[in-house]
Amino acid sequence: MSVLIVGSTALDSIKTPTRENPRLLGGSASHASVAASFFSPVKLVGVVGEDFPRRYLALYKKHKIDLAGLQVLPGKTFHWSGEYEANMNNRRTLLTELGVFETFNPTLPSTHQDAAFVLLANIAPSLQQHVLEQMKRPKFVAADTMDLWLNIALPDLLKLLKHLDAFVLNDSEAHQLTQEDNMFLALKKIHKMGPNYVIIKKGSHGSVLSAPQGFFLCPAYPLNRVVDPTGAGDSFVGGMMGYLASAKGGIDANIRRAMIYGSVVASFCCEGFGLQRTTKVTRKQIQQRVKELERLTRY
Amino acid sequence: MSVLIVGSTALDSIKTPTRENPRLLGGSASHASVAASFFSPVKLVGVVGEDFPRRYLALYKKHKIDLAGLQVLPGKTFHWSGEYEANMNNRRTLLTELGVFETFNPTLPSTHQDAAFVLLANIAPSLQQHVLEQMKRPKFVAADTMDLWLNIALPDLLKLLKHLDAFVLNDSEAHQLTQEDNMFLALKKIHKMGPNYVIIKKGSHGSVLSAPQGFFLCPAYPLNRVVDPTGAGDSFVGGMMGYLASAKGGIDANIRRAMIYGSVVASFCCEGFGLQRTTKVTRKQIQQRVKELERLTRY
Repeated sequence: MSVLIVGSTALDSIKTPTRENPRLLGGSASHASVAASFFSPVKLVGVVGEDFPRRYLALYKKHKIDLAGLQVLPGKTFHWSGEYEANMNNRRTLLTELGVFETFNPTLPSTHQDAAFVLLANIAPSLQQHVLEQMKRPKFVAADTMDLWLNIALPDLLKLLKHLDAFVLNDSEAHQLTQEDNMFLALKKIHKMGPNYVIIKKGSHGSVLSAPQGFFLCPAYPLNRVVDPTGAGDSFVGGMMGYLASAKGGIDANIRRAMIYGSVVASFCCEGFGLQRTTKVTRKQIQQRVKELERLTRY
Repeated sequence: MSVLIVGSTALDSIKTPTRENPRLLGGSASHASVAASFFSPVKLVGVVGEDFPRRYLALYKKHKIDLAGLQVLPGKTFHWSGEYEANMNNRRTLLTELGVFETFNPTLPSTHQDAAFVLLANIAPSLQQHVLEQMKRPKFVAADTMDLWLNIALPDLLKLLKHLDAFVLNDSEAHQLTQEDNMFLALKKIHKMGPNYVIIKKGSHGSVLSAPQGFFLCPAYPLNRVVDPTGAGDSFVGGMMGYLASAKGGIDANIRRAMIYGSVVASFCCEGFGLQRTTKVTRKQIQQRVKELERLTRY
């Protein structure tokens, strides 16, 4: 089945202590779509400006991502610039130019409205809601978010949460949203806000699923070298949704393994700037890392 | 087989935002010995002063810990006092009174010198070395440490490392020792210092083993409520060594499962002040959590 993915489509300028990479293909929807494309057909919903490089459109197409929902508007593509510290854990935003995102109002083509799986990747919750309202009867709806929306659009996010099957956020966001230090107490509070499936991402420490059938501790695939973690969270949730949409059987039967696949795709994402590594990965390489992760956790 | 454990035997005064607990039974050897005692006979090597409460001796005995190597010297028992912040992750030392530890010079009874498993729990590396030199031909020697020794006794620690099978340290100590941000690069450097088995503890994020047969990502048993994490690391390594000493087959066949058992005993440790919870745990409760941890990580 296909996955509809809405989120940001951006140009990312990423600085690390050793390198500077201007205007890479980035954005939550780009990372999530490429990640999902290894497993299922993807319909991308987003917006870019007239400056959006053709080679990036070609990259989407290489991954067979349906671009009927990608608007090209007069103006500039959303541009984010950030800098990482030496340990790759802390980053600060240097610049955010919204560009065409300021007026983005996604209207879904009719071919997009009956997708079974919907991923509302990180973007303003009001836009996530607007896309969700246009969907006919999705089987499974997941959303990601970021601290910015907790700060400036919390009422919108709380409204959205009531309509989600799954909500994905990182540990500091879970703490911010619930004021709970303990992860289990935070999960409990987030379930009360709506979603039956809550996933807390902990970066290189993996992630935790709280679901009707219980908890799952999902390991991260450990890396020798992190080049650029931008988009790892988006790759994780994209890979997970792509796998879920491809798997036979219900959500509960597949979501744990889907998280493992998401985790592996995210590990590739971290090994290159922007999408440079992810877009070169093969399905076979993903499979090898999934197997290796099994070996790393077996006892 | 029995496990010889040397380390600190102390009185811990522990303050948290909600409670204050003066003069609890503490110290690395106390925590490690109780943890190991669930699986194997333990011979404790340590020192206490004349003020050491009889009820704490009774507690050791309840766990069938052999106290022939526990010296009682004129003077005061080592006393540590610390305070935790609300999130239970950061703690600061308020007070350290070495007492009888200042002159401690452990001489092993002959009955102790042929123990097959030796745990050099956290204590000055020169003392760890001194105990190790008195052992006949141990099958497996593991040592734990703390940041203090990296700061004030690094040459002693580096000397000790050459004689260890396994070295256990936490992630910030691994970083301090190797100046590597990346865990794998840190592990590589530590192997070069001597031990074939290196375990990096990551608190509530679990631990990582690097061994001749590869890496193992060991999960932490997740807790709803952390009362006092003091001694959790000691409980982990104690439980691990106790399990290893009890298991049939070689180290490589058992060390992963041994870490799981250590992880579970450490989880109980965190649920009470000092050793209050650990000393009330049953082998059956440990088994239940091991099974639950399997369920939490299966996919």
